[in-house]
Amino acid sequence: MISSKAASAARACCRSSLLARVPQQQPRRTLATVVSSSSLFPNEPSSPHVITPQIPGPKSKELSDRIGTFQENRTHGFVVDYAKSQGNWIADADGNVLLDMFAQIASIAIGYNNPDLLALAKTDEFITATMNRAALGSFPPTNWQELVETSFGTVKPAGLNHIFTAMCGSCANENAFKASFMAYRARERGEQAEFTPEEMSSCMKNQSPGSPDLSILSFTSAFHGRLFGSLSATRSKAIHKLDIPSFNWPVVAWPDVKYPFSQNAHENAEAEKVALAAVEEAIVSSKQAGSSYGPVAALIVEPIQSEGGDNHASPSFFQGLRDVTKKHGVFMIVDEVQTGVGATGAFWAHEKWNLSSPPDFVTFSKKMQAAGFYHNLETRPSLPYRNYNTWMGDPARTLQARQIIRTIQDHNLIEKTDKVGKYIYDKLYDIIENGAGRGKIETLRGENAGTFLAFDGTTPQVRDKLIMEMRKLGVHMGGCGDKALRLRPMLVFEEKHADVFLDKLETALGQL
Amino acid sequence: MISSKAASAARACCRSSLLARVPQQQPRRTLATVVSSSSLFPNEPSSPHVITPQIPGPKSKELSDRIGTFQENRTHGFVVDYAKSQGNWIADADGNVLLDMFAQIASIAIGYNNPDLLALAKTDEFITATMNRAALGSFPPTNWQELVETSFGTVKPAGLNHIFTAMCGSCANENAFKASFMAYRARERGEQAEFTPEEMSSCMKNQSPGSPDLSILSFTSAFHGRLFGSLSATRSKAIHKLDIPSFNWPVVAWPDVKYPFSQNAHENAEAEKVALAAVEEAIVSSKQAGSSYGPVAALIVEPIQSEGGDNHASPSFFQGLRDVTKKHGVFMIVDEVQTGVGATGAFWAHEKWNLSSPPDFVTFSKKMQAAGFYHNLETRPSLPYRNYNTWMGDPARTLQARQIIRTIQDHNLIEKTDKVGKYIYDKLYDIIENGAGRGKIETLRGENAGTFLAFDGTTPQVRDKLIMEMRKLGVHMGGCGDKALRLRPMLVFEEKHADVFLDKLETALGQL
Repeated sequence: MISSKAASAARACCRSSLLARVPQQQPRRTLATVVSSSSLFPNEPSSPHVITPQIPGPKSKELSDRIGTFQENRTHGFVVDYAKSQGNWIADADGNVLLDMFAQIASIAIGYNNPDLLALAKTDEFITATMNRAALGSFPPTNWQELVETSFGTVKPAGLNHIFTAMCGSCANENAFKASFMAYRARERGEQAEFTPEEMSSCMKNQSPGSPDLSILSFTSAFHGRLFGSLSATRSKAIHKLDIPSFNWPVVAWPDVKYPFSQNAHENAEAEKVALAAVEEAIVSSKQAGSSYGPVAALIVEPIQSEGGDNHASPSFFQGLRDVTKKHGVFMIVDEVQTGVGATGAFWAHEKWNLSSPPDFVTFSKKMQAAGFYHNLETRPSLPYRNYNTWMGDPARTLQARQIIRTIQDHNLIEKTDKVGKYIYDKLYDIIENGAGRGKIETLRGENAGTFLAFDGTTPQVRDKLIMEMRKLGVHMGGCGDKALRLRPMLVFEEKHADVFLDKLETALGQL
Repeated sequence: MISSKAASAARACCRSSLLARVPQQQPRRTLATVVSSSSLFPNEPSSPHVITPQIPGPKSKELSDRIGTFQENRTHGFVVDYAKSQGNWIADADGNVLLDMFAQIASIAIGYNNPDLLALAKTDEFITATMNRAALGSFPPTNWQELVETSFGTVKPAGLNHIFTAMCGSCANENAFKASFMAYRARERGEQAEFTPEEMSSCMKNQSPGSPDLSILSFTSAFHGRLFGSLSATRSKAIHKLDIPSFNWPVVAWPDVKYPFSQNAHENAEAEKVALAAVEEAIVSSKQAGSSYGPVAALIVEPIQSEGGDNHASPSFFQGLRDVTKKHGVFMIVDEVQTGVGATGAFWAHEKWNLSSPPDFVTFSKKMQAAGFYHNLETRPSLPYRNYNTWMGDPARTLQARQIIRTIQDHNLIEKTDKVGKYIYDKLYDIIENGAGRGKIETLRGENAGTFLAFDGTTPQVRDKLIMEMRKLGVHMGGCGDKALRLRPMLVFEEKHADVFLDKLETALGQL
């Protein structure tokens, strides 16, 4: 019989967390002056360099076709010369150089060939970590405690003092689901209770009570990953889900808000009230006999629904989610895989909500280069080896995360991003309301979201055409949802880059 | 409406695979003489160096306790000084140096601080790939085609010409499941058929027909990962599965074989016949009305069940699995996450089966450092973005995989491992039958499996005690199953290392 008694002892010794002792924002390393982010890339181009009539050009196409002989290539945009890419500028196989406002699907934080990262790559610490990969859960390196504290520890969300390290965003979310289910059942079972023989045997047959019929609640248009658990919570597009068996987990409609928020406060508050009521109804009914899905153990939500179309909600909506989940004993998972690490003008997008109590989990990946989730001791599993795998993250990518965080802090990149975002927002607002965008693009989002901005084409075709026109003019952008164009520049994106983007956008709109 | 017509065109242009044109084993790079693997580590210790009475020693314990304040540490063995580890020898925080026969849960292929890998880390190609991480599915680097062909392409299993790259073993298996489900439904639907409106809308609610009730068949004691799909196919231990919702997928008993195979041929053939009949029965009944689980789309099997206790079967059993899956239109996934990359005395363990036709998928991770699966065009999804994610693998880890493969080939490490494995097997056989192991350890496995060997303690307690005694004597080993001790040395493990192991084993057994 496996006992969960050991949990109490383990927890007792962990009441004070070292992570908790680290100040939430590590003081910036002393610099004579905070340098301009331009200084990171003194040789950045000042304008695009486009030499082929179409992108992908002939060399990109040839290389892509060759890849297509052994691997999916219909998803290729173009083939990239990473060695020649610099800062905000991406170079392709044909010698085109584009302003990159997509940044490897929002996953490059501080620019291509950032000198701080190139220097890190040459250190003995990095080489040792990369070429001697640890099974972190069992044989951590001597520097692991210090490394975690000086990386993830310096940017931990308020109130969350523990961390689970993983390999990618989907894994981060799925491991947070697992932790939620275990903690939910532990609470039902009571701290001192042992697993029953029935639980032990039924789980080996994938049957309840050992494999309980619990569920994760998510929103329409949500994207949380594409493995079997995360895909069951993902509701973005049919093409992501078709033919894949799913858990019968519930879904609630994302609030039907209008933009900009500052001009639609009353209507949006009503729409959010409707969505919150639906969330409570889904949770309550999940626990009643005859429910078509199992009890909701956790709710997962993105601060800004990204893949699903850049859909926003107000801080009070998220406060409402925190209240209703707390009221009904449901864990709240904030998925910051795409919003995290600064682009919204805060290190974590959810910092802007000023929640009365922290979420239970905050997941991350992408710009951090390393993945995982923050949580608290309450959601550490009762016994070891319950949430475990071979690598449990990656020390080399953790070193990279530490350098990214340091560079962000040294160069004040989050405040700068917030400022640049406001600059772009205002200009885009004008272009849409009074300028070249009228009748072609609409519904600007991101009033208070740094450079995490988006707008729609009036139709999906307009959006798709605009992306291709922008690319020909030397600006690389990405879409999301049915007809949205999302801005995902890096944190080293400045007003001068914004001016290039805005200039090309006006040109492209004029040609539409 | 999304159409699958595009698939035909895409497939037509891909009939000849570049991967297919690469010879299955790349000719070894020319060397005046094939050097001894010793030459890789001229400064390897010749014997263990143990200076603390217990391992973990005080420094390991202190560092582990500190990690425990923010992360699970009850799973820690000891804390490792990777910079000081060398070849087959692992150094810990206290200065102990142990012969490592567990190798980060079987995931280090060519030794700690291998000079070939350290040299790779310093190349511009590696630094560019690491610090400018590509979203491979959309913006692959200019060298991707050449890199894949000269890495994964040189060791592709016979008959499998396509590859899907991923991040870890669980992801590799889950993406193979997804590819199986999509290909299974495509076959049911017919090549030219479009998705129906019902499929499109029902999948968004996680309901059939869009989210079909299909299943993966696996074996008792199997381990295929710990995310929601892979965990549903994993049947190793209750602690891996308790409290986690699972798909209602079927399971069949692993054949009840006896060891050594050479002395139990007739009985084992009978046991395997029973298991094969159960597999066929599970598949056939899954397709009948009233089945408690959905139609079996794929069967997943490890060549040697590893985490589940090092359970073997004969080549004819696997041939039987290939025959029965082919007969019933079920895909066969061979999970080589732990068995792959040489330790069984073949690059892929399934090469020793001489199957009449190849499996549909071969998954890998661990020693390859990169992860993914091999397959054929038939199982490429009908449309782009159906099996897709942000990173789609890791170019830096692919460079590392290429170097690992080259070092293995240059130093002839697979043949050597096969030879060393036979040497150890014979000695262990004697120790168990006639020597210090009598009545303490038993059931030696791995007659023809390189150094991928295992034996049982007579009880779980004996096994656990033996592992701890071996550690005190300076040999680091790992368990699996209920009472098995598994040997997982690296491919640079030679007779001289085996002699240290065997000597210490006899000493430890004498003390039990």
